[in-house]
Amino acid sequence: MKVGILKEPKDEARVAMLPEAVKTLISWGTEVCVESGAGQSAYADDDAYRSTGAEIKQRAEVLTESDMICGIQALPLEEISKMKPDAVLLGQMGALFNPELTKFLLEQKRTAFSMELVPRTTRAQSMDVLSSMATVLGYKATLLAANSLPRFFPMFMTAAGSITPARVLVIGAGVAGLQAIATAKRLGATVFAFDVRQAAKEEVLSIGAKFIDVAGATEDKAAGGYAVEQSADFIQRQKDTIHEHAQKADIIITTAQIPGRKAPLLVEERTVHAMKAGSVIVDLAASSGGNCALTQADQTININGVRIIGVGNLAAELPQDASKMYGKNYLNFLKLIIKDGAINLNFEDDIVLGTCVCHAGEPKNSRIAEMIKQ
Amino acid sequence: MKVGILKEPKDEARVAMLPEAVKTLISWGTEVCVESGAGQSAYADDDAYRSTGAEIKQRAEVLTESDMICGIQALPLEEISKMKPDAVLLGQMGALFNPELTKFLLEQKRTAFSMELVPRTTRAQSMDVLSSMATVLGYKATLLAANSLPRFFPMFMTAAGSITPARVLVIGAGVAGLQAIATAKRLGATVFAFDVRQAAKEEVLSIGAKFIDVAGATEDKAAGGYAVEQSADFIQRQKDTIHEHAQKADIIITTAQIPGRKAPLLVEERTVHAMKAGSVIVDLAASSGGNCALTQADQTININGVRIIGVGNLAAELPQDASKMYGKNYLNFLKLIIKDGAINLNFEDDIVLGTCVCHAGEPKNSRIAEMIKQ
Repeated sequence: MKVGILKEPKDEARVAMLPEAVKTLISWGTEVCVESGAGQSAYADDDAYRSTGAEIKQRAEVLTESDMICGIQALPLEEISKMKPDAVLLGQMGALFNPELTKFLLEQKRTAFSMELVPRTTRAQSMDVLSSMATVLGYKATLLAANSLPRFFPMFMTAAGSITPARVLVIGAGVAGLQAIATAKRLGATVFAFDVRQAAKEEVLSIGAKFIDVAGATEDKAAGGYAVEQSADFIQRQKDTIHEHAQKADIIITTAQIPGRKAPLLVEERTVHAMKAGSVIVDLAASSGGNCALTQADQTININGVRIIGVGNLAAELPQDASKMYGKNYLNFLKLIIKDGAINLNFEDDIVLGTCVCHAGEPKNSRIAEMIKQ
Repeated sequence: MKVGILKEPKDEARVAMLPEAVKTLISWGTEVCVESGAGQSAYADDDAYRSTGAEIKQRAEVLTESDMICGIQALPLEEISKMKPDAVLLGQMGALFNPELTKFLLEQKRTAFSMELVPRTTRAQSMDVLSSMATVLGYKATLLAANSLPRFFPMFMTAAGSITPARVLVIGAGVAGLQAIATAKRLGATVFAFDVRQAAKEEVLSIGAKFIDVAGATEDKAAGGYAVEQSADFIQRQKDTIHEHAQKADIIITTAQIPGRKAPLLVEERTVHAMKAGSVIVDLAASSGGNCALTQADQTININGVRIIGVGNLAAELPQDASKMYGKNYLNFLKLIIKDGAINLNFEDDIVLGTCVCHAGEPKNSRIAEMIKQ
């Protein structure tokens, strides 16, 4: 069997697999062909892929010759049509929120896996691209904030006087939030964090940040560790608490997302107006509506000296390590569907079943099946 | 007496004194007038200055009414002409390398102090703007590098595999270099440093970096802690050592400067070509010719995936804390020349004498006097 790696679209600097991952894949007895230039923006050139034993090909050849295609961004429908009928397509295609693509895959009787569907279980952790990319997002969010702030992060006692540490408020302490906290702590800031999940409190405290409590949050163990929607009363108290803390903050990093829904609005317009000139908001939820009322996706705006950075595809701004982690996630997943150098789909495996959008004209993931029924 | 604070030129975001410094100055019995908008790009508005008791005026009024003007960048000659005949001008005017300005000041019988001339003595340390700004430069250089690198700085052990720490090479371990090292260490990188001064070795080791030795450097105690020019033989061994280490580095930060001379060339063209794609060079000596052969001042260039950032006025990119430190340096210096709310120039004081460009038609600083003789 032949695995194909395509060059991602122009605004995506990552690649699904760097040469080191391709080398492992080849050691399993598969052939690999890579589109010329696929690794360029992640600083891996064609020669690096060639040296692993992979073939470098033109895009059309990779599309038509591969038995499996591993990518990140969703492929255009007309390119999916060019794939071999039995070829397996893998990517982070957002199938749950892309009915057009999902219906096309079903109609074409394609076999497709969408990596964001990987179940939130312990066994699947090593394949979880949302989690590995959240590590990248949290780290980059703090670096962006530090680079934009007109002040130092660490405390200084110098001959030219003392500098107090920057004060950072992180909203949402999932993987991205915890990494943002850890990076801000490393740089010497004083860090406060807020999350609706009590489980997050211990983690926040363990990495040296202060936890902001708002009593009465709704929790749901079935949400796989994710936050769930909250009552109107709780949300208002939450906004008030954030409003109060925001006035003392130099930086706010917001990371609160609810899978499949618009991001919760946590930083109100009045809060932005109450913040100090020079302070910075980095909104990691910008693409799903933003945690801040004034966020504009993919833009940095300035409201009376408060800059709001609505980040776009931030994982692509750390392309080398983000691609490395992505490739590792892929290898861990491919172990489940490649046996002795051939594709082997065992839908008895909850990870294989849960990650599969469709196969042989049938939806496989249960939420995809529900979406199709509607 | 009235002290005037002007708005700096467009590409300078700092201001000589923030409102907190102005407040102290007023408590000494002086009046202060501030050009409208002077603090804007350092996030201090006119109202903040007004609340200290300062007057907000138009530029022409500040120029013509002040008995002393404190600035950062050199003033245009036609503006100096508008000042009161006896007014004292302070700034970081680079008088030693600006003969046109210096001669004009002498001809006009102006009293001028240039803050980069502050002697390198223990007593003068709290007035040393080169040192305080070097702290800013070192911090920002590492942040710039971290933000540009396609990899993480810290080590990670995640479900998606291990990430090794970034490897940073800092060339020149003065104030800027040490701060760059400290910031890179904070962010979790493995840091190597190189300096021609053996005194730097202990400091490098004490903040947890590894020191790269090249035997046979020339040192001069009279250089006030600065590096001096080296022999051709030593320079070649130095370049070879840097070449060898550069190939393993993800980041090189160069900070080597010799006061009043072109920056030493330490990273050769062959070294850039031998570096890994994705690596980043931040050249803090860009404005004095650069430590890297390919550096272009105020530009980022890409040589086969190695990016070389030739930084411009980096201190201006941390305008709030840089202005805070600048103002503190100014207050410490002004204590020497303001007594009981009036200007009082005591040229018996080595700091007052050494910092003074000229007074009553005579050069005061000894190097300025020498320059004028030539």
